[in-house]
Amino acid sequence: MKQNKQASLLIIGNEILSGRTVDKNLNFIAVKLAQIGVDFAEVRVVRDIHSEIVEAVQQLSSKYDYLFTTGGIGPTHDDITTESVAQAFDLPVVFHKDAVAALQEYYKDRQDDLNDARLKMAQVPEGAVLIKNPLTAAPGYKINNVFVLAGIPKIMQVMFESCLQYVKVGYQVKSSTIECNLVEGDIAEKLGEIDAKYENLDIGSYPFIKDSRYAVSLVIRSTDEDKILAAEADVRELVLSLGGKIFA
Amino acid sequence: MKQNKQASLLIIGNEILSGRTVDKNLNFIAVKLAQIGVDFAEVRVVRDIHSEIVEAVQQLSSKYDYLFTTGGIGPTHDDITTESVAQAFDLPVVFHKDAVAALQEYYKDRQDDLNDARLKMAQVPEGAVLIKNPLTAAPGYKINNVFVLAGIPKIMQVMFESCLQYVKVGYQVKSSTIECNLVEGDIAEKLGEIDAKYENLDIGSYPFIKDSRYAVSLVIRSTDEDKILAAEADVRELVLSLGGKIFA
Repeated sequence: MKQNKQASLLIIGNEILSGRTVDKNLNFIAVKLAQIGVDFAEVRVVRDIHSEIVEAVQQLSSKYDYLFTTGGIGPTHDDITTESVAQAFDLPVVFHKDAVAALQEYYKDRQDDLNDARLKMAQVPEGAVLIKNPLTAAPGYKINNVFVLAGIPKIMQVMFESCLQYVKVGYQVKSSTIECNLVEGDIAEKLGEIDAKYENLDIGSYPFIKDSRYAVSLVIRSTDEDKILAAEADVRELVLSLGGKIFA
Repeated sequence: MKQNKQASLLIIGNEILSGRTVDKNLNFIAVKLAQIGVDFAEVRVVRDIHSEIVEAVQQLSSKYDYLFTTGGIGPTHDDITTESVAQAFDLPVVFHKDAVAALQEYYKDRQDDLNDARLKMAQVPEGAVLIKNPLTAAPGYKINNVFVLAGIPKIMQVMFESCLQYVKVGYQVKSSTIECNLVEGDIAEKLGEIDAKYENLDIGSYPFIKDSRYAVSLVIRSTDEDKILAAEADVRELVLSLGGKIFA
């Protein structure tokens, strides 16, 4: 495919690994990146352990064009993302004056104090650019090619939109899906031949159950719509030649 | 905490990263591992790319006691898990005679042929022990400390149960949750002190919204129930001393 930028995601949080919380950020980010033509290359989920976060940030930020992180930027003792990201780039943690100001403004008219724990949320690795949080003030930030976002889905989603100004939009991957009543194994070999025939095009095969029988979704993906159309014609012909029925 | 075994998960599949499919296996495995006292330490999601799978299998299987993989063991060209896992351990791919027999039996009375593509599903890295698939015959397998499972949740779940005979049951992590109407930042500092007071005990803090106001779930986790009770008393006292209300 034409060369898109590649992105990765690091989900930081014991609550995902303990089973307590079902992650909702991965799929949101996957869908959004596909829409803007950035290839989503890898995801990791790690515990709230300093060394694990540091290592994952170093590996993913050097391997891919962008790294998004979610979680661990709140005020409590288990929020260690900022100190870990700073360490990954050998940077000091500093108070960002705009973040302090945003928190002061937010807490000015509230019952809650802007105490030391909350002020921690104004800390960033030195040189970071803030990613605004219009919901609860405590910002995310961009440092080098890493976007550090909140874990709470609603806040993460707003922050994510603000990140897009820094992301190079690429060629959107288009797709075409053909669902048919064949079983995956019946078309596997010939489907592989069609897949191999076209460069920069992927054909995925996803079995599902319809009316108590196995069926399959064939998904053709490419940045080149002409190729998709050509491969789609080949796949339709293959399905029919095997006596299959294409669902409307 | 008392020393539990550590497990990791490798989710193999472009469909998760493209946003097409929402993964359901991570949370299932997280909940099950917690129940049997195995610590779930890391998850990775990688594309259907041979070298990426090989590298992740090597890293995760050497870093943790167990590695579960999901996806990529079907009959089509994009199912490359088995060849990648074999490569990770420098093993040849062979037909497993019991897997061939299971597939022959399954396809004996069906309209579908046991063709070459389907027979691929009887291939395993040499020395693998089969993990039975009572639903559609094509098995998973165990090779060294790696459990290779299907990606379709229903099949994965049945296979997962069969894996447990090979997994060392540990000390189950118990938890106690206190929900209160305080905001995370109000209790962060003192909560950190309670967390630090107890060894082998974690206190997680998870904000949520209740009646349009922020609230927080405080989750105390340990393998030692007496410690949980003691920490719980401390946390309750802290919440009340700050004027907070504990939800029943």
